[in-house]
Amino acid sequence: MTGRTAVQEPRKLTKKGEATRARILEHAAELIHTNGVAATNNEQLRRVTGISGSQLNHYFPTKESLVVAVIEWQAERVLHFYGGDQFAGFDNIDALRAWVDYYVTHESAYRDGCTLGSLASQIIKSDLQVHDELARVFDQWRDIFRDGLQRMQSLGRINPDANPTQLADLLLSAFQGGMVLTQVQQDVTPLKNALNAAIDHVQTFAA
Amino acid sequence: MTGRTAVQEPRKLTKKGEATRARILEHAAELIHTNGVAATNNEQLRRVTGISGSQLNHYFPTKESLVVAVIEWQAERVLHFYGGDQFAGFDNIDALRAWVDYYVTHESAYRDGCTLGSLASQIIKSDLQVHDELARVFDQWRDIFRDGLQRMQSLGRINPDANPTQLADLLLSAFQGGMVLTQVQQDVTPLKNALNAAIDHVQTFAA
Repeated sequence: MTGRTAVQEPRKLTKKGEATRARILEHAAELIHTNGVAATNNEQLRRVTGISGSQLNHYFPTKESLVVAVIEWQAERVLHFYGGDQFAGFDNIDALRAWVDYYVTHESAYRDGCTLGSLASQIIKSDLQVHDELARVFDQWRDIFRDGLQRMQSLGRINPDANPTQLADLLLSAFQGGMVLTQVQQDVTPLKNALNAAIDHVQTFAA
Repeated sequence: MTGRTAVQEPRKLTKKGEATRARILEHAAELIHTNGVAATNNEQLRRVTGISGSQLNHYFPTKESLVVAVIEWQAERVLHFYGGDQFAGFDNIDALRAWVDYYVTHESAYRDGCTLGSLASQIIKSDLQVHDELARVFDQWRDIFRDGLQRMQSLGRINPDANPTQLADLLLSAFQGGMVLTQVQQDVTPLKNALNAAIDHVQTFAA
């Protein structure tokens, strides 16, 4: 996969234009998270935002452009949350445990599944040209864990024989898979078990 | 969640009836795995199987009944594969490593993602009344790992302080999440990393 998706760079928008675009995106993201990508269309967006079809087309000329923007919108939220102070860049075991606690104790955080994982599962098999964007976002997410683990290593908190990339793939996979199992079982236990075991594994490298 | 889904028990079928039902299911499973649940309908099934709409309705009176049957059909294949001789009931580390090797070396095994995980991700947010069936199937799958780990424990291959249920949730989550990441990246590395790290963790309990 080389280059970006076949989506135009956003034009410069006025302040009002930016606010309109943001309003469309917020509703589109919600519709997609609730009903799925395939079931979301301009007619519904018109209904919930009150913005005309021609305006919608002005901001998002194609379904691809809308879905790419929703991926970016959700990614910004996820990456901001994961990169925020709350988790200290995941450079210690306690921050990883705090991450699990957050999901396990906030039903709203796990009830509806992962916004990006759920988008990914729907898009993977679609013919929407948004795969590069999705791959880029998941790379960035994985790198938040990898960078944290590398810092743990350089600070001597975990041993030199730990493999930060492999452990980061474990943490993000356990989260994504645990979310799927937790949705299926309507019970947070599988997510909690998977994440705690993954972090236990990181802890086996503690110096 | 109590009881079964609101789907009728299958009627007794003749041998010919069973063959027809199996043919419908095989094509339905393929259509669903390729195009998704929402995009699969009786018209396509009629086209690819040559079976009339009234016959299709005879075997599967509702979309729920068809999707439940496809879940069972896919589950039978997955549980048969996982429960088969190839992996010796997952009661030793080598069997777990053989499982990773299978996926990592067979592109056909990971290219299109997990048949059940992909179904689950689509169904979770739908209003199809098939959630109990799906939960039951994932429970059985998880139990194959848990039972294997319990045998490892009773055979003294892993320590008494290992938690087979937690480790089984880790293994299945790492597989499901690793499959999602591998589809997103179109590269088997995240799946390979996640599974190897999960098994490394089981190995830390080796007696």
